[in-house]
Amino acid sequence: MPVFTEYAAASRELRVLPSFAPPLPRRSPKPEPRSDDVERYEVVVVGAGPAGLMLNLLLARYGLSDESLLCVDAKPTTLKSGQADGLQPRTLETLKSLGLADEILTEGCQMWQVAFWNPSNDKEKIIERTSIIQDVSVPARFPHEVTIHQGRIERILETDLHRYSKRGVQRNTKLIDVKIDEAGDSEFPVIAEIETEGRRQTVRSKYLVGADGARSVVRRSMGLKLEGESLDHIWGVVDLIVDTDFPDIRRRCAIHSPAGSVMVIPRERIATGDYLTRLYVQVPGDINPDNDAETSNETNKPADARSRRSQVTEKTIFDNAAAAFKPYYIRPKKDGAVDWWAAYQIGQRVTDNFSIKDSKGVERVFIAGDACHTHSPKAGQGMNVSMMDSYNLAWKLAYSIHGLTPSAGTAGPDPILATYHKERHTIAQELIAFDRDFSSMFSGKIGASEDEVGGLTHEEFLQVFSRGNGFTSGCGIEYPENMAVNRDKSAKNPISGEDYLSGILRPGRRLLNVRLVRHADGYRRDLQDDFASTGRFRILCLTSTDILDPEGSPQRLLVVIHPRLDRDFMWNDIPNEVKQYSEMSFYSGHELDDVYKAYGVDIAKGALAVVRPDGYVGIVVALEDAERVERFLESLICTV
Amino acid sequence: MPVFTEYAAASRELRVLPSFAPPLPRRSPKPEPRSDDVERYEVVVVGAGPAGLMLNLLLARYGLSDESLLCVDAKPTTLKSGQADGLQPRTLETLKSLGLADEILTEGCQMWQVAFWNPSNDKEKIIERTSIIQDVSVPARFPHEVTIHQGRIERILETDLHRYSKRGVQRNTKLIDVKIDEAGDSEFPVIAEIETEGRRQTVRSKYLVGADGARSVVRRSMGLKLEGESLDHIWGVVDLIVDTDFPDIRRRCAIHSPAGSVMVIPRERIATGDYLTRLYVQVPGDINPDNDAETSNETNKPADARSRRSQVTEKTIFDNAAAAFKPYYIRPKKDGAVDWWAAYQIGQRVTDNFSIKDSKGVERVFIAGDACHTHSPKAGQGMNVSMMDSYNLAWKLAYSIHGLTPSAGTAGPDPILATYHKERHTIAQELIAFDRDFSSMFSGKIGASEDEVGGLTHEEFLQVFSRGNGFTSGCGIEYPENMAVNRDKSAKNPISGEDYLSGILRPGRRLLNVRLVRHADGYRRDLQDDFASTGRFRILCLTSTDILDPEGSPQRLLVVIHPRLDRDFMWNDIPNEVKQYSEMSFYSGHELDDVYKAYGVDIAKGALAVVRPDGYVGIVVALEDAERVERFLESLICTV
Repeated sequence: MPVFTEYAAASRELRVLPSFAPPLPRRSPKPEPRSDDVERYEVVVVGAGPAGLMLNLLLARYGLSDESLLCVDAKPTTLKSGQADGLQPRTLETLKSLGLADEILTEGCQMWQVAFWNPSNDKEKIIERTSIIQDVSVPARFPHEVTIHQGRIERILETDLHRYSKRGVQRNTKLIDVKIDEAGDSEFPVIAEIETEGRRQTVRSKYLVGADGARSVVRRSMGLKLEGESLDHIWGVVDLIVDTDFPDIRRRCAIHSPAGSVMVIPRERIATGDYLTRLYVQVPGDINPDNDAETSNETNKPADARSRRSQVTEKTIFDNAAAAFKPYYIRPKKDGAVDWWAAYQIGQRVTDNFSIKDSKGVERVFIAGDACHTHSPKAGQGMNVSMMDSYNLAWKLAYSIHGLTPSAGTAGPDPILATYHKERHTIAQELIAFDRDFSSMFSGKIGASEDEVGGLTHEEFLQVFSRGNGFTSGCGIEYPENMAVNRDKSAKNPISGEDYLSGILRPGRRLLNVRLVRHADGYRRDLQDDFASTGRFRILCLTSTDILDPEGSPQRLLVVIHPRLDRDFMWNDIPNEVKQYSEMSFYSGHELDDVYKAYGVDIAKGALAVVRPDGYVGIVVALEDAERVERFLESLICTV
Repeated sequence: MPVFTEYAAASRELRVLPSFAPPLPRRSPKPEPRSDDVERYEVVVVGAGPAGLMLNLLLARYGLSDESLLCVDAKPTTLKSGQADGLQPRTLETLKSLGLADEILTEGCQMWQVAFWNPSNDKEKIIERTSIIQDVSVPARFPHEVTIHQGRIERILETDLHRYSKRGVQRNTKLIDVKIDEAGDSEFPVIAEIETEGRRQTVRSKYLVGADGARSVVRRSMGLKLEGESLDHIWGVVDLIVDTDFPDIRRRCAIHSPAGSVMVIPRERIATGDYLTRLYVQVPGDINPDNDAETSNETNKPADARSRRSQVTEKTIFDNAAAAFKPYYIRPKKDGAVDWWAAYQIGQRVTDNFSIKDSKGVERVFIAGDACHTHSPKAGQGMNVSMMDSYNLAWKLAYSIHGLTPSAGTAGPDPILATYHKERHTIAQELIAFDRDFSSMFSGKIGASEDEVGGLTHEEFLQVFSRGNGFTSGCGIEYPENMAVNRDKSAKNPISGEDYLSGILRPGRRLLNVRLVRHADGYRRDLQDDFASTGRFRILCLTSTDILDPEGSPQRLLVVIHPRLDRDFMWNDIPNEVKQYSEMSFYSGHELDDVYKAYGVDIAKGALAVVRPDGYVGIVVALEDAERVERFLESLICTV
């Protein structure tokens, strides 16, 4: 197109850049620089694993600058040796809401199916495939898990962090001690002693978050303990390129063979074009009946276990894998095909408190991730629950620091900060309980027939697996009632149905993604894309069928969905406010998914829901109860 | 998961990095450095717009290093003032195959629908919406266009280029002249005179590609001309944030009002949260019957047009838009809401030759993009056809330079290079012809009723629009027969059906994406993801139903699809070679899409197809004619 006359505004040049998340508004004054030689930050994050990086990234996106936020990590470079490798569907939804899912979905291993292998009645076959089921059996935007090197997730988070923070993570810096010292400076009462390449330094902050792993210095400095037990099962884990004739090597597999148990986790393709496989292999002795203690899943003999685990080598892992896979062979594809191996003992432990208060009751120190909970890796939960701890904490901290909560700016506690422990401790306890059942069962023997005495039937195992899917997918977790989760039973409930796992709206649960057609342009869109993780509350309105009635009274809304109506309409047939406030987020909820059915909303009555910054439903009310939404929001956000 | 014993291989650290495309193997010797002071490159690319950047990026990914490849551009920085804004479905498929589609799909404006507005018989209404149709009516992986600032596409291409090239684009460097001088250096016969910030320099190369736009210096230096005519229609184009009560402002619209024509192109959301809109507005006089010449679409009066176009201002554009939108109002939302505006005259021109040979008949200089063809912007073709020129040329150049073609290394011409002109010139001519019809029609008057004399009916307009969809989507283009497109009618054809636009396999057309379930892991996958743009030929085998028959004889294949079979199977039920060569690219072709039906393949007979590095089908043969595949490939790739 040859052009003859041309004009361009200067602002047009900015259109070439990648989008940035808009920061939250700030109502509180920014801290003034002081003349003493103690560095002061509003938040110090200790640890840059998945939990610490996620927290740091979210706070930076929400608007905390390098002057406000410091993240330190003892390691010299980006972590390259992480052990986790699984991302749940809910974590994928969260990463998508941050614009960080593409590389993971494209380059990771999408794990769609699980195969169960059990002892065969045919002694020649030794083991046989009992069933193949979908790995994720609950509705989710991404109906599969993704397995990928933890270091890669961290690199993706850190690369994005550098778009918002010049400093990024301060490396080579280890935490020596943390204490609360209100007398010295009541605004910045948290004192962290840190050491960077031999140089000691004291840093003060308003808040400090320990995302420093299972051996957390923050946790120990605060006198918190991981409570729980180590079970008596020893496992080896190995990442490698395999050579095998086992037919399901690219499926997640639970293999219970007469020679022991193995879990197969297919992994991503690497630069050579080969695909990695992770194997979890039961270590011998564990199911060997010559030690009475080891036949019971409940018995703990840490001393015995410790002596056995120290004897685990690469060879013992492969020998045991080879035995469990029989009649199939399995071996490393070539020399150097083993990427990583380790031995571990199953244990489930959780800390009683995820936060520590100062003398005025203000939460000052938080812990997140492995610092609060440790468990077995087999349900693929660790990295996910850790990042979701941070996803839960970040917006609450940012709201409080930015002066966006009703009590922000007062000297007393900000109740929103207490909901972090309330919500995430509940999930951690459920995680521990689930993992205990799942691991015990997985380490147990499964009989060749259903009537085997003392063993587990395949059907029992399958049941636990499927029941656990709401939890393991991350899509079924439900936060308990608190100021940010309102399930007031005395109010009118516009929702029918209780199959919350399938999407029925429920305060405390994440908003299920649905596919919609946008009124303005016919765009076939995923609803969750209107709920980007930018720290904002949103109101979702499912209108009733009377939206075409000129007497209908819409609210000041953000996202609006309408049911199937009895005639076509244009903007001027519906209340002005819909176009004014929701032109680009007004959808038909019937052309692709049946949204009203999925959410349990009567099309004749409609419903209003508040969705929190982390994508969880805060409250659901009848359309005529809009003032309940107002009261709910007023308890969380200050009014201006 | 606390770990006790741990080992990690050094190679494991690489797993955190983003993936790189594997370079093509190189059989030819790399050029030796010379002691004279003339820089030598294997390829010089002139221009870093969409065509030049795409070519440069592809060549760098295929393996041409900075010593081998130079791209120069006269502009000092990344282009920020491009005028194109539309990406067709086929271009989106191509960008996806390069791993570059995510930001574009997420942040661009997905344009799903077109609304047609025409004069109303009801004089009160003035105009009315006649219909809304899907913008893309042919099967495509992304069934919509995307509109987004051209500068952003270029930034995405250039950012990726820097992963493969240290130098990237050499800026501030303009081309003065090009000539072919075989006497001086027959291996590097192309001489380019370039000037960087006042400093002149002579650069020699084996090949030079002019992607230097409509006013191409390369084209002029080579004595090539854009042939064609400028039509008499003057249009204004403006990008802005609008304030309007027009109901379809977020749909692509063709508005034919009594006061003139407007095309609405919805655009991406920008950082302020506003959405851009592009308007193409007919300039007055063009349809004003007080000038006889202007009532005919075929008449050319360049002098008249030139005087009128020089009078186009922002105000005339808005005045005419306002008149055409009546009874709706439209205006810039606020001061500064206008991003860019320009005036242009519709013209369709194309160059006779896309390449120039030396005295031995070797193609040495190529032109691509706007340098070869110019046309109106309204069908949204420019940037797409330009990038696809490069996509077509890049693998051919790389194969020839790397010594991968049968005649590479001989002194004579490499026939693969001649297919560039053959294929892309055909498409350019079709583009020009389509654009001439489309533009004329769009600039013409449409009657309020079907029987209007001299005008076009809405139905006629709609027909041209829909017929053109195969072309405008990029999904329906078909390359003519040549050495890389074999449609030998004397051979057995395993394909039934001729609805090639819907996916029936056809040499010269792109392979339609289908959704499949992978045998190895149950992954629900897009077939095109197995055809990444890494410069490789691939063989696609649609097996017959006898794949479970032990006598069946599979080939050495890459991607294998099977039809619905009469029983379940495991790897050991099918020929070993399938697992050996295609473990991770072996699919069921019936669980999601009915692939055999889509491709026109009989499940009892199967078919083999060769897919070229650019995703176009090269040949389709019956399973028993595998040696035709061999012969076809031997004519294109040297055997080792």
